[in-house]
Amino acid sequence: MKPDYQKKEIPVGSIRRYLEPGPIVLVSSARDGRRNIMTMGWHTVMEFSPSLFGCVISAGNYSFDMIRYSGECVINLPATELTDEVIGIGNSTGADTDKFQKFGLTAEKADKVNAPLIRECYANFECILHDDALVDQYNFFIWEVVRAQVANSPQYPQTLHYTGDGVFMISGKTINRRDQFLPEML
Amino acid sequence: MKPDYQKKEIPVGSIRRYLEPGPIVLVSSARDGRRNIMTMGWHTVMEFSPSLFGCVISAGNYSFDMIRYSGECVINLPATELTDEVIGIGNSTGADTDKFQKFGLTAEKADKVNAPLIRECYANFECILHDDALVDQYNFFIWEVVRAQVANSPQYPQTLHYTGDGVFMISGKTINRRDQFLPEML
Repeated sequence: MKPDYQKKEIPVGSIRRYLEPGPIVLVSSARDGRRNIMTMGWHTVMEFSPSLFGCVISAGNYSFDMIRYSGECVINLPATELTDEVIGIGNSTGADTDKFQKFGLTAEKADKVNAPLIRECYANFECILHDDALVDQYNFFIWEVVRAQVANSPQYPQTLHYTGDGVFMISGKTINRRDQFLPEML
Repeated sequence: MKPDYQKKEIPVGSIRRYLEPGPIVLVSSARDGRRNIMTMGWHTVMEFSPSLFGCVISAGNYSFDMIRYSGECVINLPATELTDEVIGIGNSTGADTDKFQKFGLTAEKADKVNAPLIRECYANFECILHDDALVDQYNFFIWEVVRAQVANSPQYPQTLHYTGDGVFMISGKTINRRDQFLPEML
């Protein structure tokens, strides 16, 4: 049974809460009637306002051209219920397969981009290409997040963090240390 | 009691195992007789060979000039034994304090850079500035890791992953799914 989240929109400047911890994400894209999903772990938050997010998408990926030339994508955050799908998506190519169909995932219409979002993911961040200055040299894309949706519950999703070599770290408990922070650092 | 790790050198192309999961790191730097440490969570692996690592270091940090104009730093990976130090370092400035002294950390001589490494951290990655093309616009530095050392044990350190708002996720268990990967994806 795949998860069926109820979601709410959150401010785009709040995505660090979900992405800064470093989870594996699924990148969905579309162009010229084709669509695809790829698994991705090389990413970083870059700015709060505008809400910027950078990531490496290797030119060897079937998604690369679709993402580069549409200038759009959706960053989808899977929780551990989708572990098999995350691995399957990362170990297959969209050249000969529709991965939404193959992995039983729902392509839902996004609001701000033409790329579809993945309904079964805990969160969906719709992105527009902000700067491609480092794409040729490093395959590094800088995105502006223009819409962010996250599940109402649980408060902290159990996420997958890749260490290479087929091994994932699963997110553990959270600790609140607000009382040790300066107000301006929160 | 702070940890006292025995460390070994690993290939610089292997740092993804420690950094791709998204932990908070401590960046140490030195210039003109000054030295400093900052807490940092906006980073990504960028390439295996050369071993590239990108990160955002805000121009507002006391470390910024030191890092930019020395063109060097050490990325140190703290485990949860250093949680108080990580928070303290992130909530103070090096402008009026020697953070090594204040937080009881040992500045050890690095091998390939003049910046000191932090002995009590689980891993130390010595870095030389590879590309500063995005520093002016985004405070985004691209580093080449030129030497990597990690502790002999434990195999998987318990790391801190920041979610904002004073809350950290602590790394949980690992799962091995090698059997679901294509050989060329490992």
